[in-house]
Amino acid sequence: MSSSIGKLLTLTTFGESHGVALGGVVDGYPAGIEIDEDFIESEMARRRPGSTTLGTQRSEDDIPRILSGVFNGVSTGTPIGFVIENKTQRSSDYGEIAHKYRPGHADYTYDMKYGIRDYRGGGRSSGRETSCRVFGGALAKLLLRKEGISVNAGVIEAGGIKAVNYSWNPPFKGPLYAPENRNLPDMEKAIRDAKMDTDSVGGIIECRIENMLPGLGDPVFDKLDATLAHAIMSIGAVKGIEFGSGFDAARKKGSENNDAMRAENGKVEFLSHNAGGILGGISNGDDIVFRVAIKPTASIAKEQLTITDTLENTTISVHGRHDPAIVPRAVPVIEAMAALVIADHLLIERAYGRR
Amino acid sequence: MSSSIGKLLTLTTFGESHGVALGGVVDGYPAGIEIDEDFIESEMARRRPGSTTLGTQRSEDDIPRILSGVFNGVSTGTPIGFVIENKTQRSSDYGEIAHKYRPGHADYTYDMKYGIRDYRGGGRSSGRETSCRVFGGALAKLLLRKEGISVNAGVIEAGGIKAVNYSWNPPFKGPLYAPENRNLPDMEKAIRDAKMDTDSVGGIIECRIENMLPGLGDPVFDKLDATLAHAIMSIGAVKGIEFGSGFDAARKKGSENNDAMRAENGKVEFLSHNAGGILGGISNGDDIVFRVAIKPTASIAKEQLTITDTLENTTISVHGRHDPAIVPRAVPVIEAMAALVIADHLLIERAYGRR
Amino acid sequence: MSSSIGKLLTLTTFGESHGVALGGVVDGYPAGIEIDEDFIESEMARRRPGSTTLGTQRSEDDIPRILSGVFNGVSTGTPIGFVIENKTQRSSDYGEIAHKYRPGHADYTYDMKYGIRDYRGGGRSSGRETSCRVFGGALAKLLLRKEGISVNAGVIEAGGIKAVNYSWNPPFKGPLYAPENRNLPDMEKAIRDAKMDTDSVGGIIECRIENMLPGLGDPVFDKLDATLAHAIMSIGAVKGIEFGSGFDAARKKGSENNDAMRAENGKVEFLSHNAGGILGGISNGDDIVFRVAIKPTASIAKEQLTITDTLENTTISVHGRHDPAIVPRAVPVIEAMAALVIADHLLIERAYGRR
Amino acid sequence: MSSSIGKLLTLTTFGESHGVALGGVVDGYPAGIEIDEDFIESEMARRRPGSTTLGTQRSEDDIPRILSGVFNGVSTGTPIGFVIENKTQRSSDYGEIAHKYRPGHADYTYDMKYGIRDYRGGGRSSGRETSCRVFGGALAKLLLRKEGISVNAGVIEAGGIKAVNYSWNPPFKGPLYAPENRNLPDMEKAIRDAKMDTDSVGGIIECRIENMLPGLGDPVFDKLDATLAHAIMSIGAVKGIEFGSGFDAARKKGSENNDAMRAENGKVEFLSHNAGGILGGISNGDDIVFRVAIKPTASIAKEQLTITDTLENTTISVHGRHDPAIVPRAVPVIEAMAALVIADHLLIERAYGRR
Repeated sequence: MSSSIGKLLTLTTFGESHGVALGGVVDGYPAGIEIDEDFIESEMARRRPGSTTLGTQRSEDDIPRILSGVFNGVSTGTPIGFVIENKTQRSSDYGEIAHKYRPGHADYTYDMKYGIRDYRGGGRSSGRETSCRVFGGALAKLLLRKEGISVNAGVIEAGGIKAVNYSWNPPFKGPLYAPENRNLPDMEKAIRDAKMDTDSVGGIIECRIENMLPGLGDPVFDKLDATLAHAIMSIGAVKGIEFGSGFDAARKKGSENNDAMRAENGKVEFLSHNAGGILGGISNGDDIVFRVAIKPTASIAKEQLTITDTLENTTISVHGRHDPAIVPRAVPVIEAMAALVIADHLLIERAYGRR
Repeated sequence: MSSSIGKLLTLTTFGESHGVALGGVVDGYPAGIEIDEDFIESEMARRRPGSTTLGTQRSEDDIPRILSGVFNGVSTGTPIGFVIENKTQRSSDYGEIAHKYRPGHADYTYDMKYGIRDYRGGGRSSGRETSCRVFGGALAKLLLRKEGISVNAGVIEAGGIKAVNYSWNPPFKGPLYAPENRNLPDMEKAIRDAKMDTDSVGGIIECRIENMLPGLGDPVFDKLDATLAHAIMSIGAVKGIEFGSGFDAARKKGSENNDAMRAENGKVEFLSHNAGGILGGISNGDDIVFRVAIKPTASIAKEQLTITDTLENTTISVHGRHDPAIVPRAVPVIEAMAALVIADHLLIERAYGRR
Repeated sequence: MSSSIGKLLTLTTFGESHGVALGGVVDGYPAGIEIDEDFIESEMARRRPGSTTLGTQRSEDDIPRILSGVFNGVSTGTPIGFVIENKTQRSSDYGEIAHKYRPGHADYTYDMKYGIRDYRGGGRSSGRETSCRVFGGALAKLLLRKEGISVNAGVIEAGGIKAVNYSWNPPFKGPLYAPENRNLPDMEKAIRDAKMDTDSVGGIIECRIENMLPGLGDPVFDKLDATLAHAIMSIGAVKGIEFGSGFDAARKKGSENNDAMRAENGKVEFLSHNAGGILGGISNGDDIVFRVAIKPTASIAKEQLTITDTLENTTISVHGRHDPAIVPRAVPVIEAMAALVIADHLLIERAYGRR
Repeated sequence: MSSSIGKLLTLTTFGESHGVALGGVVDGYPAGIEIDEDFIESEMARRRPGSTTLGTQRSEDDIPRILSGVFNGVSTGTPIGFVIENKTQRSSDYGEIAHKYRPGHADYTYDMKYGIRDYRGGGRSSGRETSCRVFGGALAKLLLRKEGISVNAGVIEAGGIKAVNYSWNPPFKGPLYAPENRNLPDMEKAIRDAKMDTDSVGGIIECRIENMLPGLGDPVFDKLDATLAHAIMSIGAVKGIEFGSGFDAARKKGSENNDAMRAENGKVEFLSHNAGGILGGISNGDDIVFRVAIKPTASIAKEQLTITDTLENTTISVHGRHDPAIVPRAVPVIEAMAALVIADHLLIERAYGRR
């Protein structure tokens, strides 16, 4: 089922950006977890446009309504259905694109696949659908919180400007959700410059999962990094993922890349962290660290060459209120997907009496 | 099921490097496909050590025996069971590691997960298990061949030396399976130098899927890039994956990264290929291009700091015949996994009468 | 995922009888199908209490609201989300049972499983949840209608009174939804008598799938009868299922039970129908016929021995408006589940170019 | 995947009756379970023809060879691969049917589905494939044994003769594997008579799962009875299944069919057992009881009307050594499938810390 992810703890979603509503079902959620609706709201708030002054001023009142699975503020163990009504469904911002394919968007591929194109907004490929992921991820985070496991992400590169010498002290503040570092002003400037230039920029997000338990992940095909990669790459605008030293590992020697081990007072330590917390597809207890490449927003007002749906050559300017960078808004979405995956693997480990 | 991958066309595997045998089941394979056993054998041959003079001289006679699902050389549509006997099961090469955890290996994580450690070889995490993947991938390639779709991979970086100005003319020749380019001698030298230095190196592999059909991939969670990432990252030693311009996309402007479109004589063309053949998680008909980061071989004879399974600090030298670089051997495995994923999505498209 | 059923065409549901709303997602539904909302409404209407004068007069305004996946009255191929608001949430009818387990209900087993009991109504085990099944089934029927395949069920026994010498001419009329036959008045009387006696009765429902295509069903574990049995037995109050001659086959000789075959003008005929349309788990083109045992309604006003949730012995009378027989209301639910299964298998066959 | 069953504990199988070998993979099996190979052998022995003097004298040396997942006689937690070589592959017994469809068999439906018919034996629909199920079930029984849960089945009706006044004291002795009762000689005679008459008979098997844990089963679609029904109905020759009072429940009043409850010394008792151990799809702690209808063997020497694969009318006598009744041989297969399902649900409950 392509609208579902997870094996025991699953998230199923539906909804398009300009449809009546979005929503879904979180299934396999344990009973007895206190459902902290303020926490859920704070997670939802982080992904809204306008939550960052670098972004657009679109209004999305995506307040989720929980329809089942919670009784007296506690999960019952039965499926948690939720709906997020689309209060502002304004097609007018998208009028020009009814018959033209926007470069960098999924317009063309959707038409190729379904033969029917809902041109209103991005349909099922729009950023709005991420609200369902963030809701599911918030529930997963509540479960992980009980284990002391935390999932945090932050922007470590924007518009080509890298964060340097940063400490990892989440949560990171808006508008960029980047760790404090001396390049932060330049990172933010790169985004504002793109906006003024009717263009857009991309960036790189780092995600760390701390206080991990060792032993999560299932060889051969449901390795922890494989399932994390699946979940993260399913987020729109993601073009790459790497774990630990990632692509740099390709340039290291084995003697440099292997993480030596040491034990002190019965506690195991890794002397370096090139593995990124995962070895042989299984967590080793170290923090899990991965980085995600986010491409620049495809919707830009700059004129671009394209074709119509009758295969005529034309140009297009995508007007309307679009973010000059998706990167800040992707931060909570990446956390959400990672939390769902870790929580799922945790439940599987419990099935085998291992956690 | 963690030993299975795929939704309609599935591969299930079993077996450890020093167990009696490896094998598995390919299910959901269409009836009527000619099973070209010479082709399967040539695919299996590419992954064996000794198939590359840069590698080790271990003998693996991993000839697969097909036990069902094929009648008179043609697939029957019923599950294809296969077994690959482990003719050479020699534990002696691994003697030292019975109670020490090898850095960079899955020894420690397996012990944390299962509480039982089969120290013989790499167990379920060894490279040997890839023979089952290559077998399944060979069947998938036969299916794709009927559509004219080809899946090829090649080493574009080894030991930090990049291939430059290369043409993509597969199949690439051993021992490195890299495209012809002027840096090829230095790429091979980097590997041989590592071997002489009792160390190892990593590399980067590029994979291209050509003559693709548009429309493959299922939003939201089974996007084509997400499922490819899952399958590729499930291969041991893989630490990262990127599609199209990948991590470079993060540094481009939207106006640069969007691929403009043009139509000529009813045929659609993309004027650049930053998308890597996938937009919104669905193939656009362009070649799919992705790159994979392979870490250096963990087993090196150089002495490393580690601990015993009773948490004492010690050192270890992993002797025996190990490849100084996994990279060349990973090439057919990456092709195999990609072929399985594309073939699965193709069958799903056919369910909907779309291909 | 226990809230989901199906492999390509899937239905995921959520919601409890006294929660805020019910709903779900239909995923994998082909694009381009006209969504006939009048037809959906007529299907939903058949399952409501009060739709049969033999039933209760509870008011359930379960009008489904489609939230996605349909554009201009046609399916888009993307997931179809739907919600059914619970307008009348009245706990007062259930007050007595807050701390007593109702015999024949899932109260005790839910408490054993989840440790949390939502005593309001039947929770996730109530009959109300069937509205989601009927909605999903209605969509499946629309798909099958395009193939000419029809799914109909009718009550052939109620309160121990069997329908005799009936013709199969659906649709069958309320209040009982039984085929016309001379015992129909006695069947209806048995139900009314039970009501007056503050008791309840069960019955048997026959389902026929006509104009079937041969070849649907997947050996070994997803045989057509196995997946139908799974779907039907997942409906509350179902205690048994049999196909073709069913339990009677156990009493026949092979020479009697085997269905002889004949060909006339290139058309294949079965001279008897003991197989019920399925052989070796695959449809043979004959009508599929199965029968379902429905137990009597567990909620009765008659006093019964039971225990409290603190393990004290007590008695209970379940007052309120309960159906004296579930049987008529189960008819559209059985059709719905059967339609979902057949449609799913049909899509799988298409993946292999077989239909 | 139609060759797989189960969610956490899964069995995947391959192989045909006249192929080279049968086998499969048991995945998700916990580590640390002692693999009692004598027990496995005794389970395999019960299903062989010739294990019952009422059956045929075909020789099947189906000794399974474990290829992975077991080390020093203990499960490692990794997938358990196994192969059962087909020592006697004799096509000659089946010569006549190469171009005729045997009534009651899957010949016709396989041809309709795959367009390729492997006429040798029953292919994937033959009884031989059950050896893989019994192997997987034996592993599941070892797991349940640790919990004190037992799964036993016995023949309670054969050739129309019912067992009367029987006690449930498994294991039951061959050749019929029926509980001791005064009709046992007549039950056995009915089978021998059919054999002498070149005909066959069916029967009914009862299965009881004792010392059950309450709380197993997942609403809404993976109810315990639904998943059991799926697994049991996937066995060849099964035409129906009923739980508890089953089809008789349809004829009872609610006041009769509801099982009253009583508590004594903190222990909960059900005063009757019409539920068959399952309420609302979840086990209640009572023994699970279900009955299965087995049709008569389709292969009989009596002449039958049929058609050829070129649609000509003809007759057929299926000679060779066929069992006059499948019923005794189905007993261990039913136990095996039930054990797999219960064990899978048990692991799922553990994931939620409930068992």
